[in-house]
Amino acid sequence: MSQLENVTLIKEANVYFDGKVTSRAVILSDGTKKTLGIMLPGEYEFSTDLKEEMEILAGHLEYKLTGEGWQTIEGSGVFYVPAQDKFQLKVHTVTDYCCSYIKE
Amino acid sequence: MSQLENVTLIKEANVYFDGKVTSRAVILSDGTKKTLGIMLPGEYEFSTDLKEEMEILAGHLEYKLTGEGWQTIEGSGVFYVPAQDKFQLKVHTVTDYCCSYIKE
Repeated sequence: MSQLENVTLIKEANVYFDGKVTSRAVILSDGTKKTLGIMLPGEYEFSTDLKEEMEILAGHLEYKLTGEGWQTIEGSGVFYVPAQDKFQLKVHTVTDYCCSYIKE
Repeated sequence: MSQLENVTLIKEANVYFDGKVTSRAVILSDGTKKTLGIMLPGEYEFSTDLKEEMEILAGHLEYKLTGEGWQTIEGSGVFYVPAQDKFQLKVHTVTDYCCSYIKE
């Protein structure tokens, strides 16, 4: 069980796709931001502003980055999405994730 | 927008009812624990260990404490559940909550 220490947690959740995707934001002591969220089964497309590190803590999903094929994660894994880009997801089971926003 | 400062956040989510209820635990600087969660529409029953303060941040639901009638919260509100007890919920819209565990 891992934890984030000395963080500021925004109480109110972010709700997308009728609640099938929800997340909460945390600000780390170095000022960087992460969101921790849950995705229920479904197909989604997201856009990035900053570069994102998508850490899958638990779940089964496929993801597709621009110009690449579908990749599968079962259990845990990580992928990176460039800034100002899009990515697609096919979420097959309840998926727990931690997204880090990376300033370049 | 309210926030919890200097907290320790457990990264892994708690998942109940096939993901229709999910939460994440935070430990405050005074050692007390809260969980922040999302409930999708549905009917649920929960049991308490410690006394709980259920703060509804956003949503529409009905709750029933042992020996009492159904009460409605629309938008935001709060209710308390005794330790070692049960409560029932009818969640009508995506509901964002913060549960505080109170040692007596």
